[in-house]
Amino acid sequence: MNAPDTDPGRELLARVFLTRVLEPGDETAGRWLREHGACEVARRLRGGREPLPGVSGKRWAGLVARAGKAEPLGDLRVAREAGVRFVAPGDTEWPGQLDDLGDARPVGLWVRGRADLRMWALRSVAVVGARACTEYGAHMAATLSGGLAERGWVVVSGGAYGVDGAAHRGALAAGGATVAVLACGVDRPYPPGHSQLIDRIAEQGLVVGELPPGDHPTPSRFVLRNRVIAALTRGTVVVEAAYRSGSLVTARAAQRLGRHTMGVPGPVTSGLSAGVHELLRGEAALVTDAAEVVELVGDMGELAPERRGPVLPLDLLAPGARTVLAALPSRGAATAAEVGRGAQTTEDEAIARLYELRSLGYVERHGDGWKLTRHAVISVRAGRSRC
Amino acid sequence: MNAPDTDPGRELLARVFLTRVLEPGDETAGRWLREHGACEVARRLRGGREPLPGVSGKRWAGLVARAGKAEPLGDLRVAREAGVRFVAPGDTEWPGQLDDLGDARPVGLWVRGRADLRMWALRSVAVVGARACTEYGAHMAATLSGGLAERGWVVVSGGAYGVDGAAHRGALAAGGATVAVLACGVDRPYPPGHSQLIDRIAEQGLVVGELPPGDHPTPSRFVLRNRVIAALTRGTVVVEAAYRSGSLVTARAAQRLGRHTMGVPGPVTSGLSAGVHELLRGEAALVTDAAEVVELVGDMGELAPERRGPVLPLDLLAPGARTVLAALPSRGAATAAEVGRGAQTTEDEAIARLYELRSLGYVERHGDGWKLTRHAVISVRAGRSRC
Repeated sequence: MNAPDTDPGRELLARVFLTRVLEPGDETAGRWLREHGACEVARRLRGGREPLPGVSGKRWAGLVARAGKAEPLGDLRVAREAGVRFVAPGDTEWPGQLDDLGDARPVGLWVRGRADLRMWALRSVAVVGARACTEYGAHMAATLSGGLAERGWVVVSGGAYGVDGAAHRGALAAGGATVAVLACGVDRPYPPGHSQLIDRIAEQGLVVGELPPGDHPTPSRFVLRNRVIAALTRGTVVVEAAYRSGSLVTARAAQRLGRHTMGVPGPVTSGLSAGVHELLRGEAALVTDAAEVVELVGDMGELAPERRGPVLPLDLLAPGARTVLAALPSRGAATAAEVGRGAQTTEDEAIARLYELRSLGYVERHGDGWKLTRHAVISVRAGRSRC
Repeated sequence: MNAPDTDPGRELLARVFLTRVLEPGDETAGRWLREHGACEVARRLRGGREPLPGVSGKRWAGLVARAGKAEPLGDLRVAREAGVRFVAPGDTEWPGQLDDLGDARPVGLWVRGRADLRMWALRSVAVVGARACTEYGAHMAATLSGGLAERGWVVVSGGAYGVDGAAHRGALAAGGATVAVLACGVDRPYPPGHSQLIDRIAEQGLVVGELPPGDHPTPSRFVLRNRVIAALTRGTVVVEAAYRSGSLVTARAAQRLGRHTMGVPGPVTSGLSAGVHELLRGEAALVTDAAEVVELVGDMGELAPERRGPVLPLDLLAPGARTVLAALPSRGAATAAEVGRGAQTTEDEAIARLYELRSLGYVERHGDGWKLTRHAVISVRAGRSRC
């Protein structure tokens, strides 16, 4: 076993390469990465002559063939042109809670959008459910997500038709933060009918995924994508799901990861509520509105910094966040649009920073209004006087 | 303190008298009864000069005035003419689980119908809910109750409009056993619009209540009636209930008594499911069909004699029950109508006996068919050869 290569540039490039070669959630590969480091694994895959342990000859040959076609520098260039960045474990933007996935942790994430994924994920909830949902399901997903957004929470979903789409739209419509986790390249929105929605999410929110630019979704990639949604968030709410629905996979993954699992009940006469009811007959909590969701996911003291005031000194905030923070009134609340105008930037940019500042404990959202937290007022004033 | 009078005839008559004088669920009176016995309490109320402890002068005067007008022999005669019997603690037909109510235990129960209340109550479930229910609620109540009846369970409810009525009708339509617990005299059905339904329940099932013949319901009597429904059954299922609904009183009473509490979910957008969802967010179990209800309430080994075979020797069965038992085929199943014909009696009579025999572990119901249990086959055959 060689000592892992620790050059950050090489490590990053190796991981970019590996997102093209390895399938998401491959735990054998995850173990190699942990034991040998990304550079060594990439080197062996490129060379092709030193198979890694625990892999059949046939599978090794497949991986080596893929490795032969991978062009990580080209992928990074294509990504940059599409406004996509690559975030790897160890980066400041890496959401640490993904490490709970162990060897199934993503090799890296491709991210599209202006917000900081790590900050946003700190206060996020997944809202998922059936693609072929009823009007009731779409209504509940949109209402719940709008309510979560108004309480300063980030709504994470899978970008699919039905409940996922309604959840994203509900958060967007409320001037909220939303993250779509795709099972394909983030520059190649899927499903095609949601390309406008996903583009809009990339403007006001974030679009993330494990697959490199241009890569396509497969059934197993959809299933494995769900573990990322579950791990990224503090809890998963299922809104309508038939028996054996993919959303139940997300919910069970959340359960295994120790996240909160919740379900929205519906008529017993609706097959699309059967899966949710099954979940609710187990460990999942029944929720009927955003307040009940927040009551559950908001109780983790160690992740709720606002009670103790800001956790990051003002000086360490990124310039964009500081500008947005300075645009908030000392007293009372302002809308994201007003804050954007005050900071001489767009509303989308203001939303990105405001939800980051929310996670850091500087601001709070109540309905349409953003305001400084009690503790933040003091530290911001001190900061202002120092300028 | 005098030693309680133990003459069974006098005790019974005293209790008949007391159902006219005391309000249901009066725990102070319940304590007197426990300490002094029904005869002594009745004697003092009739005399009027020796107030019982813990009662104000005004209240004592009210009770004495009521006592002056009570005519227990007249009540018994009116009851007999209306086909109503009086069942008191200690009687063979007294459902022992009502003793869990402590000093709030009914003084006695007026019963209309041919089945044995004690036997039926052993395997019973309450299905209750909103009077102004939706079609969904009525559908669920009827389906659930029909399913319970087909699994050999007795459906108990309050005879009210809405969910209660649908529950009774669902059980009746499935050729099942159902008990209406009224908050008024059982010869005076309430609500008036349900007089036909309640008459039908008295034929195929049982109509019971704490109030003597002709007595009328009051708001507090409705509330206190609910404790009897909760105590009589192994569990309570709430189908549609708004916040602060009376059905939630029944459910919480059931919870306090250690009975199973269950709720049928519905659309979050329906105010009539809000109370149920509140319950489900607490200790209550979510149920979507009769099988799930039975899974819960059927797990109390000591009350499920069929697993160990019949608990009462054949010789001790009432003649009616023995005739019906003899009309069951040695192999395979028969409908209640077929059993009734075989026993040369009505279908209603057959239903009454079959559900009693179900509680005793002699027979089982699956869908429309009644058959001998495995253990019963042997003992019935032995009994037959002895005839």
